[in-house]
Amino acid sequence: MVKKYVLVSGGVISGIGKGIIASSTGLLLKTMGLKVTSIKIDPYLNIDAGTLSPLDHGEVFVLNDGGEVDLDLGNYERYLDVTLTRSNNITTGKIYRDVIERERKGDYLGKTVQVVPHITDAIQDWVERVATIPVDDSGEEPDVCIIELGGTVGDIESAPFVEAMRQFQFRVGHDNFALIHVSLVPTIGSV
Amino acid sequence: MVKKYVLVSGGVISGIGKGIIASSTGLLLKTMGLKVTSIKIDPYLNIDAGTLSPLDHGEVFVLNDGGEVDLDLGNYERYLDVTLTRSNNITTGKIYRDVIERERKGDYLGKTVQVVPHITDAIQDWVERVATIPVDDSGEEPDVCIIELGGTVGDIESAPFVEAMRQFQFRVGHDNFALIHVSLVPTIGSV
Amino acid sequence: MVKKYVLVSGGVISGIGKGIIASSTGLLLKTMGLKVTSIKIDPYLNIDAGTLSPLDHGEVFVLNDGGEVDLDLGNYERYLDVTLTRSNNITTGKIYRDVIERERKGDYLGKTVQVVPHITDAIQDWVERVATIPVDDSGEEPDVCIIELGGTVGDIESAPFVEAMRQFQFRVGHDNFALIHVSLVPTIGSV
Amino acid sequence: MVKKYVLVSGGVISGIGKGIIASSTGLLLKTMGLKVTSIKIDPYLNIDAGTLSPLDHGEVFVLNDGGEVDLDLGNYERYLDVTLTRSNNITTGKIYRDVIERERKGDYLGKTVQVVPHITDAIQDWVERVATIPVDDSGEEPDVCIIELGGTVGDIESAPFVEAMRQFQFRVGHDNFALIHVSLVPTIGSV
Repeated sequence: MVKKYVLVSGGVISGIGKGIIASSTGLLLKTMGLKVTSIKIDPYLNIDAGTLSPLDHGEVFVLNDGGEVDLDLGNYERYLDVTLTRSNNITTGKIYRDVIERERKGDYLGKTVQVVPHITDAIQDWVERVATIPVDDSGEEPDVCIIELGGTVGDIESAPFVEAMRQFQFRVGHDNFALIHVSLVPTIGSV
Repeated sequence: MVKKYVLVSGGVISGIGKGIIASSTGLLLKTMGLKVTSIKIDPYLNIDAGTLSPLDHGEVFVLNDGGEVDLDLGNYERYLDVTLTRSNNITTGKIYRDVIERERKGDYLGKTVQVVPHITDAIQDWVERVATIPVDDSGEEPDVCIIELGGTVGDIESAPFVEAMRQFQFRVGHDNFALIHVSLVPTIGSV
Repeated sequence: MVKKYVLVSGGVISGIGKGIIASSTGLLLKTMGLKVTSIKIDPYLNIDAGTLSPLDHGEVFVLNDGGEVDLDLGNYERYLDVTLTRSNNITTGKIYRDVIERERKGDYLGKTVQVVPHITDAIQDWVERVATIPVDDSGEEPDVCIIELGGTVGDIESAPFVEAMRQFQFRVGHDNFALIHVSLVPTIGSV
Repeated sequence: MVKKYVLVSGGVISGIGKGIIASSTGLLLKTMGLKVTSIKIDPYLNIDAGTLSPLDHGEVFVLNDGGEVDLDLGNYERYLDVTLTRSNNITTGKIYRDVIERERKGDYLGKTVQVVPHITDAIQDWVERVATIPVDDSGEEPDVCIIELGGTVGDIESAPFVEAMRQFQFRVGHDNFALIHVSLVPTIGSV
C-alpha cells in the first residue's frame, strides 16, 4: 500500500484545536484498521521543547528515547497507542542546524544554499524518512502519517514549512495527500 | 554625530545593479567628507562564500582577515578605500547558526525562539555592532553605514531580513535611516 | 474652521457595529459643540434602498425629501438631531449612473473614463459637496462629516470607495481626516 | 460540438501584444477548420469608443452596424474574415448601465444588487449570448470564441471581469475553457 499523508494546518488564530483534529483524525483512521504515525512540526528555533517554559506551550512531553518534545506528541501516543521518537518532532532549529552543518561539511559544495530548495527539501526528506519508522508493537511500517503544522499559515515562521508541504503533495502524488485546514470562522448574531 | 544608515534593496528581478548603487552612494557620501562603512547581507544559508561556485555569484573575495565573502565587498573596499572584516558580510547561515547555538547554551531559557523577534533582533544587533567598527586608517567610527540587502524583496529567503530592516528604522529613528529601492521599471515603445 | 472628516470602515466581517460607532462618534462631537453631518456609503448597485427587501438590511428609511435610504441614516437623524437628504446616501449605482450619463453627454470627450480617476473623483466630489449642506435648524454649514463606508474592506464591491477615500485624505489634508476601522479581533481562552 | 472559449489576459504592463496573440490564435483555429468569433472586453466606463481620442487607443473602428469600437475588433475582422457587431465589444459602461437600468425597472426587486454576483453574471450572460451569433456568410454558429480582456490583471478596473471569467470556466466546464496570459518576463544579461 502506498503511504498516505494528512496535513493539518491552521489559520487566522492559533490555539484553535489543530492538535485535537490531528489526533482524532489519526484515531478514526486507526479504527478503520490502518497503522498510523504522526509528526508534529513546530516552527520555532528551539532544537527541542526542553528549554521551553510550560507556561507557553504546556508541559514538555518526554518520549521513551529521552526526547523532550511538544505535548501534542503525548496526545498522539495516547490517542494512537504508539511510541514516537524525537524525530517525530520537527522544529525550525533542527532543520536549519542540519542544513548549516551539512553546508560546512561541504555537502552542497559550490551551491548557493537557500530556503527553496534546500530547506524545503530537507523538510520533505525528514517527513518521508520518519513516516516509515514503525511506531507500534507490530514493527510494521505505518500506512498513514498525520502531519500537524504548528503556528498559523501566513506567519513568517511557518513559511518554509508551508512551501515544503505545497511541494510535498507533488512529490507523493495528489492521491496520497490530504489537507485539513482548521480556521476561525466568525459568526455574528442579529445585525 | 548620530550614525546614519542607508539600506539598498531590490525588487522584481535580481542582478539589476544594487551593488553599484550601494557603492556609488557610499562614494558620494565619502566625497562629502563622511566616513562610510558597508554591510552586505546575503540571504543564503552558506556561512561564507568560500563554498560557492564562482559561476553563481562571481569570484569569491578574500578579505584581510581571511574571510571569504561576496565580491560586492571587494567593490566596497575599492570604492570606499576601506578594509572590511568577515562580519561585514551577513548571511542567513551565520544568523541562524548563532541563534541556534545560543538557544542550546540556554541564552533564551524558557523562551520560544522565533524568527520574530529573535532572528530579527539578532540581525539588527549584528548591523548595529558592525556599523561601529572603524574601517580606515583613522581608526575612527564611521558616520554612515551602507547596507546592501541581496536578493529580491518578496522572496521567502529575504523575508526575515526585510522584517528586521523594517523594525530597524524604528530602532535608530526615521531621521537616521534612508531606503534606496532598485527595481525594474518596464517601459514599452509604440503600442 | 476647516471641515473635518471621520471615515468609519470595517474589516473581516460585516455587521460588527460600524453604524453604532459612526453615530456615537458623531454624537460625541456634537456634544463638544460641533455641527455634525453624515454620509452613508452603500457599495451596491441599487440606486436607492427602495427596492431592497427589509430582510437583508432592515427597514427602508424614508427621508423628508422622500429619499428611500439605508436605515443607518435614520440612526444618524435621531442621534444627531439632523435632517438628511437622499444625497447623504451614496451607492455604487448612483455614482456609476452619473459618470456613465456624463460620459454619454460628452463631459469626458476624448478621455478613457476609468474607475481611477473618474469614479474615484466623482465619489470625492460628491462627499465634499454633501458635507457642506446644512442639516439642522441653524442653517449653518457642518464642521464635521462622518462618513460610514458600508461593506468590508477587501470586498470587490467597496474597492473603488476605499481607493477614493485613500485619495481623499490627501485632498483635504491629513490634519482634517481621521479613520476609525472597526474589525473583528478574535480572542481565545485557555489553549 | 460544445462551444470552446479562449481567454487572452495580460499582466505587469499593458500594450504587450494581447491583441496580436488573440487574433493569431483565432486565425490558427480558423485554419484548422473551426468557425471563430471574438469578443473584446474594454474595462472602461465609456459606452463605446466613439468618445475616445485616437491618441489613447488608436483609431476608432466602425463596424457594419455602426458600432464605434476599439480597433482590436478591426484586427479580428481582417484576421478572421468575419463581420462583428457592437455587442462584440463589452465595456464596463455597457455592463453597469444595463444592470443599473434593470435595477430601476425592478428586475432585481428586493435584492441587494452587487458586483458579485449581479455584474459578474451579466458579463457571463453577455459573453455566452454573443458567442452564439453567426459572424460569417455561412450563418452558422461559431465553434470557438476568443475573448480578449483589455487592461492588466490586478487593476481595479478589470477586477469584476477577472472574477467573471474565473467563474465562467466553471459555468462552461474546464474542458471548454483555455487561458492565455500574456506577460512581461524580464530577462537580464551578464550581472
